[in-house]
Amino acid sequence: VTESASTIAATGATSDHPLEPIFHPRSVAIIGVPSGKSGMASSFLGALLELKFQENHALYPVNPKMDEIEGLRCYPSLLDIEGEVDHVISVVPARVVPMLVEQCIEKGIRSIHFFTAGFSETGDAELAQTERTFIARLNAAGIRAFGPNCMGLYVPDERLGFMSGFPGDSGEVFLLSQSGANAGDMIHGLAKRGVRFSKAVSFGNGADVKAHHLLDYAASDPQTRVVAGYMEGVQEGRKFFEALKRCAAVKPTIILKGGIHAAGARAANSHTGSLAGSIRIFEAACRQAGALRAETMDDLQDMVVTLTTEARRVDGTGVVLVSGGGGYAVLSSDAVANAGLDVPRMPQETIDQLREFIPVAGTSVSNPIDANVSGVELQRKTLQIVARAAPTDVVFTNAGSTSPDASESDPDDDSPPADQIAHARASAEESATTLAEIQRSTDTPFVAIERGHSYSVTAGARVDAFAHAAHKQGVAVYPSVPRAACALGLLLEWRKRREGLQQLF
Amino acid sequence: VTESASTIAATGATSDHPLEPIFHPRSVAIIGVPSGKSGMASSFLGALLELKFQENHALYPVNPKMDEIEGLRCYPSLLDIEGEVDHVISVVPARVVPMLVEQCIEKGIRSIHFFTAGFSETGDAELAQTERTFIARLNAAGIRAFGPNCMGLYVPDERLGFMSGFPGDSGEVFLLSQSGANAGDMIHGLAKRGVRFSKAVSFGNGADVKAHHLLDYAASDPQTRVVAGYMEGVQEGRKFFEALKRCAAVKPTIILKGGIHAAGARAANSHTGSLAGSIRIFEAACRQAGALRAETMDDLQDMVVTLTTEARRVDGTGVVLVSGGGGYAVLSSDAVANAGLDVPRMPQETIDQLREFIPVAGTSVSNPIDANVSGVELQRKTLQIVARAAPTDVVFTNAGSTSPDASESDPDDDSPPADQIAHARASAEESATTLAEIQRSTDTPFVAIERGHSYSVTAGARVDAFAHAAHKQGVAVYPSVPRAACALGLLLEWRKRREGLQQLF
Repeated sequence: VTESASTIAATGATSDHPLEPIFHPRSVAIIGVPSGKSGMASSFLGALLELKFQENHALYPVNPKMDEIEGLRCYPSLLDIEGEVDHVISVVPARVVPMLVEQCIEKGIRSIHFFTAGFSETGDAELAQTERTFIARLNAAGIRAFGPNCMGLYVPDERLGFMSGFPGDSGEVFLLSQSGANAGDMIHGLAKRGVRFSKAVSFGNGADVKAHHLLDYAASDPQTRVVAGYMEGVQEGRKFFEALKRCAAVKPTIILKGGIHAAGARAANSHTGSLAGSIRIFEAACRQAGALRAETMDDLQDMVVTLTTEARRVDGTGVVLVSGGGGYAVLSSDAVANAGLDVPRMPQETIDQLREFIPVAGTSVSNPIDANVSGVELQRKTLQIVARAAPTDVVFTNAGSTSPDASESDPDDDSPPADQIAHARASAEESATTLAEIQRSTDTPFVAIERGHSYSVTAGARVDAFAHAAHKQGVAVYPSVPRAACALGLLLEWRKRREGLQQLF
Repeated sequence: VTESASTIAATGATSDHPLEPIFHPRSVAIIGVPSGKSGMASSFLGALLELKFQENHALYPVNPKMDEIEGLRCYPSLLDIEGEVDHVISVVPARVVPMLVEQCIEKGIRSIHFFTAGFSETGDAELAQTERTFIARLNAAGIRAFGPNCMGLYVPDERLGFMSGFPGDSGEVFLLSQSGANAGDMIHGLAKRGVRFSKAVSFGNGADVKAHHLLDYAASDPQTRVVAGYMEGVQEGRKFFEALKRCAAVKPTIILKGGIHAAGARAANSHTGSLAGSIRIFEAACRQAGALRAETMDDLQDMVVTLTTEARRVDGTGVVLVSGGGGYAVLSSDAVANAGLDVPRMPQETIDQLREFIPVAGTSVSNPIDANVSGVELQRKTLQIVARAAPTDVVFTNAGSTSPDASESDPDDDSPPADQIAHARASAEESATTLAEIQRSTDTPFVAIERGHSYSVTAGARVDAFAHAAHKQGVAVYPSVPRAACALGLLLEWRKRREGLQQLF
């Protein structure tokens, strides 16, 4: 087994936080690995193989009914593995857990993640007691546990993950989530938008490792710059609040709380055994801690995009809308105003500069700007002029507006030639780079709106290439004007109340 | 030129409304057709050719600088066309319009649509006077005008349209929109979801044909069952209100009003010269007329889907959520409650029935249902049982849940073989049909949620096939639980205040 320190060194420093070694297992055993490929339980082996975990680490499938799976030797039990095992993924039925726990102690593992469910979240007092007992046994032996009832760890630098489609490269966002499905939604949804992760943890019932441990770790992790979380209940309230405050003081921290309404609270209780508590108290805790609270999953993802791009620097309400289509501009203006931002009229000087090359008929240049100019040069000129106007704090434009092929539509072709896809990608990347250059040269944050989605391969390649190139160069991309406006409204409200506290950017 | 009565007869009756002939031109001339293919002005010829208008109608491009375009003879002027011209599309510059108007009168056309902008919407008093003058000239000669400053007519049965990608088949939704871009967004967005249109009209400044004329027509049109509109200002308020009331009394009618906030109102004024007016008064007018008001473009489209499927029959707040993923169920429950609906606990009898085949560990069956069953038969059984429970008014499920290949993920392949695409389509259609059958047999409306989007061709084919097959069989599909819940919340509020009025379904 290769020591994985080299991978860590390649991408960033580590902290001396007690959880640090847990994120760097040299070997993983999956106990109860299923033989089939369907269902959540089978996703662990699939995800590890997809990320190529086994190339630099030891991977031990355990299932007494198989000798081999996916070309790997399959062991009858944990204790039959010759090498050391750092981390265990438990996919066994609940009744087998107490026995597995004893084997883990005997084997001397560091950490265990229980996908296995059927304990405290069932509401059954006896099963809850069983959970408490085996967690105490593990902790007494110095073993940390994730779950039960969760998806566990995603550590891109260690090529450790729990669902198919997770990026193999790492980034600056730390994610904590009680729910595995929501962690998956966040990782998949944000990855498509170019966001990458330092670590992500789905921690389910939180019988051992809880939100406050993870916030505490995230605050100290040099690889992490932004922290995002999904929670259903608050465990050990005082410790949670202190950890949230510590984390939010040094890194933008945003939390989505599920179980706000009675129906959601009941669902949260039967999902992770959480007591949802009052959302007012949770909101007050976030405010006092200097953290952000997201109201929906979309809000959370939009805020992560905001906080990882130059959009985080927006510090005033003046939005310039540069769009095609007058009716679209009307609805966009309403959405911007609805989020508490403004669409300030451009000063006469700016209007005069625009009118030098924008004809009167069928256009507007006072803001919203409906310029209807063609060609990347005039688009660039328009964007530069409005970005430099005094009332402008941020400029919204369409994702394709600075594309060299703005007038080309994506062919609706099932099997386009490779060069057509390559061309769409290159053109989208060029478009994103142009926008990033204007953002830099005018020192004004830009926001790109990716309107509408086609399912053609060429359109998919274009959207994907634009999102990645834009995010990499610090340009935020949102799926609609209302969502961009809401994210910036939330940001401004947060920046305002953070005044006097340490500035994070 | 073939008389188009045959096409009309094939799909539905016509009314004796004075606007009826305008929707059935036997011939169209595009005056000032551009030689290039980029820009909005060129979209008319492209759209007509794409819809094959020329196969059963006469199509006359007019541009003195060309002899031929796209294989069609190009005429130097309207008066050089030998045949009769029913409908003219004006793409000429504003200064040429007065001359064109005289030619139209001489030629004896029925109707003209001015894409040409640069009149009353500029705010210039002289240009507004010009507009009034030429509209009066046309009307005096018995010619009706759409616009100026708009995209005109989409009549699928006549193969008349104004943008690429409009469906060639017709349906039951009548659309009116001052904005051409928003009309395009609505048609493209709804078409992807399986909705089809009787007619759509973008009418811009509304100098002649206004919203009230179109509502009046829609009320009388036997092909139209649902009416949706986008407006920026109300013209001739009393007539508008009367027409809205007349229309909403016989057909579900939903209006999105742009220019709600000051910024939007300013944009509306420079876009279509509209005076946005107070949204409170507009809202009150909609309520009094028995119409629905949408707050956003997404709301409008979701409501059209609702009103054209069995979802329109939902008449209580009891939502059953059948989903995979506990955290997703928690957020879904919150979203449903947020929209004013309930997630009622299933009665013990229902729980017992479900527990016969759903294990305890990692599942919930009280509602939300997180059953984690595999196979279409157990899914079907789950859905049937919960649909028949007493507190159930509507069941939400994932789009793929009744698919014969529920566990297969879409391969991320740029050039999948044709049989793979065909298989994905067939499987999605089967899934939609299964859902429609359960909807029918349980007499309970179902809602399918199409979560997440991949850009692969196979995923695109699957999503498209499901959306079309589901809509055709009366199952509503929404992109998220919050959007489905909002649409049903709006529907219930509307149904409640419509009580005592004529029932529309």
